[in-house]
Amino acid sequence: MLQVVPVSEALEHLRGMLSRGVKSGRASTRSALGLVLSADIVAGEDLPPFARSTVDGYAVRAADTFGASESMPAILDVLGDVAMGSLPGAPLSGGCAMRIPTGGALPEGADAAVMLEYCEEPGDGTVAVGGAVGPGENVIRRGEDVATGDVLLKDGHRLRPQDLGALEGLGIISVPIYEKPRVAVISTGDEVVRASECPGPGRIRDMNGPAIRASLERDGLVPEYLGVVPDERGRIEDAIGSALQFDAVLVSGGSSAGPRDMVALVFDSFGRQGVIVHGLALRPGKPTIMAVIDGKLAVGLPGHPSSALVAYETAVRPLLRHIAGEIVPAGIPVRARCSRNISSRPGREEFVRCSLRRDGGEMWADPILGKSGLISTMIRARAFIHLPLDSGGVGKGSLVDVYLFD
Amino acid sequence: MLQVVPVSEALEHLRGMLSRGVKSGRASTRSALGLVLSADIVAGEDLPPFARSTVDGYAVRAADTFGASESMPAILDVLGDVAMGSLPGAPLSGGCAMRIPTGGALPEGADAAVMLEYCEEPGDGTVAVGGAVGPGENVIRRGEDVATGDVLLKDGHRLRPQDLGALEGLGIISVPIYEKPRVAVISTGDEVVRASECPGPGRIRDMNGPAIRASLERDGLVPEYLGVVPDERGRIEDAIGSALQFDAVLVSGGSSAGPRDMVALVFDSFGRQGVIVHGLALRPGKPTIMAVIDGKLAVGLPGHPSSALVAYETAVRPLLRHIAGEIVPAGIPVRARCSRNISSRPGREEFVRCSLRRDGGEMWADPILGKSGLISTMIRARAFIHLPLDSGGVGKGSLVDVYLFD
Repeated sequence: MLQVVPVSEALEHLRGMLSRGVKSGRASTRSALGLVLSADIVAGEDLPPFARSTVDGYAVRAADTFGASESMPAILDVLGDVAMGSLPGAPLSGGCAMRIPTGGALPEGADAAVMLEYCEEPGDGTVAVGGAVGPGENVIRRGEDVATGDVLLKDGHRLRPQDLGALEGLGIISVPIYEKPRVAVISTGDEVVRASECPGPGRIRDMNGPAIRASLERDGLVPEYLGVVPDERGRIEDAIGSALQFDAVLVSGGSSAGPRDMVALVFDSFGRQGVIVHGLALRPGKPTIMAVIDGKLAVGLPGHPSSALVAYETAVRPLLRHIAGEIVPAGIPVRARCSRNISSRPGREEFVRCSLRRDGGEMWADPILGKSGLISTMIRARAFIHLPLDSGGVGKGSLVDVYLFD
Repeated sequence: MLQVVPVSEALEHLRGMLSRGVKSGRASTRSALGLVLSADIVAGEDLPPFARSTVDGYAVRAADTFGASESMPAILDVLGDVAMGSLPGAPLSGGCAMRIPTGGALPEGADAAVMLEYCEEPGDGTVAVGGAVGPGENVIRRGEDVATGDVLLKDGHRLRPQDLGALEGLGIISVPIYEKPRVAVISTGDEVVRASECPGPGRIRDMNGPAIRASLERDGLVPEYLGVVPDERGRIEDAIGSALQFDAVLVSGGSSAGPRDMVALVFDSFGRQGVIVHGLALRPGKPTIMAVIDGKLAVGLPGHPSSALVAYETAVRPLLRHIAGEIVPAGIPVRARCSRNISSRPGREEFVRCSLRRDGGEMWADPILGKSGLISTMIRARAFIHLPLDSGGVGKGSLVDVYLFD
């Protein structure tokens, strides 16, 4: 019998045993999308490097416009134009204005810009400003976006498009990153053959291998698919032995406690540590093995496809992201109403596949029921309903937490 | 002045003018993650191809176990073992059972399996079954996961890990897909230089180019960054002219209606159609141009980074996914309580950057306010709060729709 452990407990325990980040390196910002920073990024300069107008109009001293209105405009002397891509030579003295385009550099002395729409030039070298602006209005001050010395992005952050824009804006075109961990994927089972083979009688093609391989790719890891191994202890030992050259090992099948389940025994036969958790308080996904072998994560996933994928999403992915160097932010669930009753036994948390629809301004989650040995339920689903440990199930119409598949 | 159009209207109009899918091809399932199917996938065989046990135990006729209990077990003759990876030779007659491992093929005549835990072999060639099973219990029937002729996945579907698992399970290792569209990215502005250059006085480095390039990569398109072009009509014409060799063109900057805004004029000077929408009822992101040039999407994004990114996410990305062949599913918002009042002018929809936290079982969205010319607000944010057209703003504590950045 398996001694089940809640997923959150298993995660906390394992996280403490596994280093964050495998190996540091550098990457060009051009190829850094989705990579994880291995050090804080501190701004070495101000962004923008000078005060800029955010509108087409006139650079002014805000105080010169106070009290101005359409019927009582402020009359200012026009000193000329701010040219794009250069700094105005002379400072702006009181009672004066300069024409300025969006993005133009504010002359020294100016602290605001007035939109073209509120101004009129009568042709005598002045401009009539028909509205007041406050200091800083329609202007981005020097360093207002990012100031020298600011920590722009932190160690452990996974780079998104906007992060790369800001980095390049600061002239940072190479960043310290953690290299992507390489993760071995092994499928086991006497009855399992590779997809490219024609399965003989009583045999089926590997589904977990390709699904886990693609999950790793989606999650920013490098999968190394080592193929299918029969349920023979020696063959499994050999496969796991050679898989330990990589940064982590995921084996599917043979993870329960039956006579043909050998993965836990094999994990325990290698190096230090061995099996830490055998059995998760999770449905589907209970017969999951979490081991540490010489500091590397080794996981035995259930053979049933939906179980393997639920265990991967909930218990393995957070650890792989940790190994990839990421400080993993809390998951953000969608709240939806469950469209039918779901029962749940005490002592385990459940992830129920579901589709989602919007009806009358509310999100509804429609559970997709089916055996965990089926993969088609995962195909019809767009998300999981999460029933926490000891929830005792959920009634039709109740609000539930739903996690979208990425 | 811009004639603003609601985003949903602009999308509907443009979608009708743009073909779904640029070019069909084929991809190996090994490299098909995130690609879009260009035809329905119909199962050519049953999955599983034979009835399988989902437990370690005994294959039985369910009817032979009816009424069985721990105190009154059903006694069945054990005919032997089902070997993994082969089909049992003889059918199972009434009153008999076969030992079967998880994944083993059910013998003909059997319609259920009993878990090992409920069984005992006294040693006289029989097994005592201490519980009843129903027909189909602990069994996956032939074709129960996917049946021959089922449409497994549809044209326009973007492939996820579980889809690839099922495809390989059916022996499908090559799929019809739409090729990834190539999208040109051009930044404009006399004051803008590439990130690798040192900006002279009054100049800044390009941020929109790298952020949009990475957004395209994230969204499964192939970005072609053509660099920075000054605000000269001839230079912009040349750049857009050569960009039209690609499947779509995204230009940032020069998209408003001022004297230095030339992108709309240039779009109108090429080929058929031209500018369809100039101005979106969107904040930030109003000065956005949506054009069609000889059947290709050409977009003018605002120069302000947050405006450009909001316009990209809300108005451009759905069209690019359409061009990529995807039948785009409805976005699924997270519902959260807004932690402060936000005002909103009528006649536009707003996307307010926010962070998210969980407090007392509820999600809270904390708005991050700041000028649209800043990129740092996008860096501190994890999501957008969506205020629909004419919402009139939102009060502190109200439930709002929040869309996570991917």
